[in-house]
Amino acid sequence: MLPGMSLARTPEPPYWAVIFTSQRTDREVAEYTHMAEALERLAPEQPGFLGLESVRDASGFGVTVSYWRDEASIAAWKANALHLEAQSAGKARWYAEYALRVARVERAYGRYAKDHST
Amino acid sequence: MLPGMSLARTPEPPYWAVIFTSQRTDREVAEYTHMAEALERLAPEQPGFLGLESVRDASGFGVTVSYWRDEASIAAWKANALHLEAQSAGKARWYAEYALRVARVERAYGRYAKDHST
Repeated sequence: MLPGMSLARTPEPPYWAVIFTSQRTDREVAEYTHMAEALERLAPEQPGFLGLESVRDASGFGVTVSYWRDEASIAAWKANALHLEAQSAGKARWYAEYALRVARVERAYGRYAKDHST
Repeated sequence: MLPGMSLARTPEPPYWAVIFTSQRTDREVAEYTHMAEALERLAPEQPGFLGLESVRDASGFGVTVSYWRDEASIAAWKANALHLEAQSAGKARWYAEYALRVARVERAYGRYAKDHST
């Protein structure tokens, strides 16, 4: 993932979350990393994108949550050409297992560091 | 977190997800780790618990998603005595920043490794 991952600054609910959890294989590390970083750069340019939080540990277990304004935004991102390529390679070679959940965020709270505010 | 984290085997939606994202401070590593592991052992004993996925990287950025049958289950877990203690210490000392989102999972799919099935 790109350096400097931090908490997403999302608006007041309701909005949507796509929770993607996965276990990486040990295959194609360079190809996977290149694609993951390309998608992390591309997602914020999509209509309705609200934020992204992504983390993977040394064992290859990862959780990525992306936030979206509405279900139409999620559908459009799912159909994005580069994203489709990633989905295909992910299923075939990059993930030993994965789960994707689409959820409607109903409420949220938190405390954000001032120096991270946007 | 406890060793052997893997994908949660959740039932068919709808159900609920609590998405907790946080940036650790570097304070009280032993105390934090002890509490995190205690909570990971305790949560599965709570009514309505459906699963837990948690990952934190070397920079201290973490995402923990817990899955619950309904909002009453989430409220009960939030009010659990050990969990209240953790929330207090988390706010005061363990997290530089954090966000918590409560979301209703509307749909889900995935592919699970056979040897991980439960």
